[in-house]
Amino acid sequence: MNAPTPDLLTPRSVQRPVPPAMLAALRERFGARCSTAAAVLEQHGRDESTYPVTPPEVVVFCESTEDVAAAVALAAEHAVPVIPFGVGSSLEGHLLAVQGGVSLDLGRMNRILRVHAEDLTVTVQAGATREQLNSEIRDTGLFFPIDPGANATIGGMAATRASGTNAVRYGTMRENVIGLTVVTARGEVIRTGTRAKKSAAGYDLTRLFVGSEGTLGVITEVTLRLYPLPEAVSAAICHFPSVDAAVRTAIQVIQMGVPIARCELLDVHAIRGVNKHSKLGLREAPMLLMEFHGSEAGVKEQAETVQGLAREQGGEDFQWARTPEERTRLWTARHQAFFAALQTRPGCRCQSSDTCVPISRLAETINESVAEAEASGIPYWIVGHVGDGNFHLSYLLDPNDPAEIEAVERLNVQMVRRAIRLEGTCTGEHGIGLHKMGYLAEEAGAGAVEMMRSIKRALDPKNIMNPGKVFTL
Amino acid sequence: MNAPTPDLLTPRSVQRPVPPAMLAALRERFGARCSTAAAVLEQHGRDESTYPVTPPEVVVFCESTEDVAAAVALAAEHAVPVIPFGVGSSLEGHLLAVQGGVSLDLGRMNRILRVHAEDLTVTVQAGATREQLNSEIRDTGLFFPIDPGANATIGGMAATRASGTNAVRYGTMRENVIGLTVVTARGEVIRTGTRAKKSAAGYDLTRLFVGSEGTLGVITEVTLRLYPLPEAVSAAICHFPSVDAAVRTAIQVIQMGVPIARCELLDVHAIRGVNKHSKLGLREAPMLLMEFHGSEAGVKEQAETVQGLAREQGGEDFQWARTPEERTRLWTARHQAFFAALQTRPGCRCQSSDTCVPISRLAETINESVAEAEASGIPYWIVGHVGDGNFHLSYLLDPNDPAEIEAVERLNVQMVRRAIRLEGTCTGEHGIGLHKMGYLAEEAGAGAVEMMRSIKRALDPKNIMNPGKVFTL
Repeated sequence: MNAPTPDLLTPRSVQRPVPPAMLAALRERFGARCSTAAAVLEQHGRDESTYPVTPPEVVVFCESTEDVAAAVALAAEHAVPVIPFGVGSSLEGHLLAVQGGVSLDLGRMNRILRVHAEDLTVTVQAGATREQLNSEIRDTGLFFPIDPGANATIGGMAATRASGTNAVRYGTMRENVIGLTVVTARGEVIRTGTRAKKSAAGYDLTRLFVGSEGTLGVITEVTLRLYPLPEAVSAAICHFPSVDAAVRTAIQVIQMGVPIARCELLDVHAIRGVNKHSKLGLREAPMLLMEFHGSEAGVKEQAETVQGLAREQGGEDFQWARTPEERTRLWTARHQAFFAALQTRPGCRCQSSDTCVPISRLAETINESVAEAEASGIPYWIVGHVGDGNFHLSYLLDPNDPAEIEAVERLNVQMVRRAIRLEGTCTGEHGIGLHKMGYLAEEAGAGAVEMMRSIKRALDPKNIMNPGKVFTL
Repeated sequence: MNAPTPDLLTPRSVQRPVPPAMLAALRERFGARCSTAAAVLEQHGRDESTYPVTPPEVVVFCESTEDVAAAVALAAEHAVPVIPFGVGSSLEGHLLAVQGGVSLDLGRMNRILRVHAEDLTVTVQAGATREQLNSEIRDTGLFFPIDPGANATIGGMAATRASGTNAVRYGTMRENVIGLTVVTARGEVIRTGTRAKKSAAGYDLTRLFVGSEGTLGVITEVTLRLYPLPEAVSAAICHFPSVDAAVRTAIQVIQMGVPIARCELLDVHAIRGVNKHSKLGLREAPMLLMEFHGSEAGVKEQAETVQGLAREQGGEDFQWARTPEERTRLWTARHQAFFAALQTRPGCRCQSSDTCVPISRLAETINESVAEAEASGIPYWIVGHVGDGNFHLSYLLDPNDPAEIEAVERLNVQMVRRAIRLEGTCTGEHGIGLHKMGYLAEEAGAGAVEMMRSIKRALDPKNIMNPGKVFTL
């Protein structure tokens, strides 16, 4: 593995221009919803990764599945790249127009279409965000648990197989998307899945599109599982003498089968960031931020078990978030940790690792990664969905310092290779995008990647769907 | 939809003979493990469906992934069909050699390869059975929950996306297979997935193969999630005045989010069968057979909640299975319900429906299906994984009576169409096989099935992997 990533400074590859006839057709179909304004293009050519802005040639603001189908049909006719865009919160360069083309902004497709509270399902347009969804279904007594840090769109979350803090109990988008409406690379509309909880009917197209990162089609509607709000919820903080002690506690919680709902690690650097950003006043020592869901008795029982395990590792007494407001404040701070960290080094960009390993290997993975980070002298911080074996060691790098970019990249390669060696993955939840393309074959093997390529060629013969991402053809 | 199934009496279609050169090569490679004995062929040409025996031309007993790869490479060279075979417990004609070819018997590949108790994972060869797996890992304190009625192989269960009585709490094979070793249609070996609990790395090939029914490749090894044996387990029977009352109780249990581990419906006909077969002496009234997993307090709490809901529907007091032995006896009887039912009508075959609907539609689905069954005069029985919205209304038909076969088929079509109309599926866990091929397009839509075909053509260009199943090319 020589070049693990496309050049971090110039991600553009071959350009595939939008021909004038196509631009004219888009303008005719979409009017003012078709834009080539520089500011609009720039906004659609960046995400939260360290890559420089790489704008598309044109942006189309879609308002329906039919809009998407019409735009994709035109792109297919002219063999022009199509990149679906939600809110731009990707961390791996998914949205960058590395081959030019059309960005389809689905942000206006944000309706909650059908709530079936009696079946614990909801169907939303792809541009609805996770916070909006939970806000709009609040009076049903149900909630949708998947929560990446950003207030991402449900479509983007499905496309990247996202997860977040609740995944340890409720699973990821893989487990919680039960059906999709998809516009294919030919501009046709298909539906995958049903509203039944399980099915053995044919190939699992739903799971094929979940995590396909826009490279096989455009997700326009998503049907999700919902969950009854638990009778009781309690959140606690526990400080530990070391990151290692906190991680070992999390490992034991999982091995014992405690149905913990959230189990998040924050190191001192992360705490420093959220303290400043969210005015929290947390003690700057490694901690687990946990939440328990269940009946009153069940929550108490879980917490006692975990407190016992924590004590064996030198963990302190739990500090409880007593009210819903306190709980919300803590979790909001956790979700803003990324932006909080960015503010601790002015002008920096954040490069986040995303490895995930079998739970028993998590302590050694984190310990070795921390030792490397300390030795590098580059500012970093750690948060982790440690109950899943997934953590983010994020470097705060100076985007104008190629040496630092290169150093961080080298450290990142070491973390990824360690995870793969321990039978884990280079990405637990952020996706491959541009940045992890070099690792995919090393993780999955050349044969499996070739099979992915065969599927891509079969479903997108003109290579117009978010080309240049996940793997090269 | 005119012809929902291939002809039930003569499922054979175009024949693709095994050329003498290939047979010679198989004999050279496999010696006595390559058989053309009539009894062996017949055994590999039947399953538990109502179809007549449809044997392959040759059976190869594989003992390793390399064996499978060698056999498939030869089949690819000669464009000959390959059908993976486990224990032959399919209910939908999956194993029938409708185009002739080679049956690969994986029954000898039954080793439990790697138990990682500390990570709650295990890797097994495809021919290991579910009972064998649980028996061999007993001393780890872990178990594997997925339990179709038959003691099926893990490979077969993965290939058909099987589930069973525990799926309401633990999910199906879809949620519990985390990685596979697969022999592709070219005879190459690939691995899918890692041992990490989650991953966002590339297309979800694991989920593509789970439920692909042998049509994309041969699964030779499976990595599974395991679960800690619960601290407390309790099982209860509750009798109801009607099937409807039992089903309505199950619906409310799910809607309230009670984490029930098993929630099975048995109608009077099913009870009559298991009473006779397993000498149980259960009262012949509709009942739910339930199990609760958790802490001592949690199990008690769940049971109290469910008892309360049951009473509102006229349910009686729970009768408890007090000892592990009593519990095992009840669940063994439940798993043998299929064979018990077969014995209630000498010489009959059983045709089982497998629809699954959103939970709120389950009562109307079952009630209407029961009314049709009663009107038909043909013997039937019902069991249901009602917590999942999935039930089996099974007719006991005389395989020598074409009129009865046709009548049952008509009733089956009505059940399937009802399920599809209610946003459910024609098959919750048995798979499409031969028997449900006519329903797939009606359920998934022509565009989605065409996409499945594109994937099939891309991964199996010579159409040698279990051809003529799931859909026609």
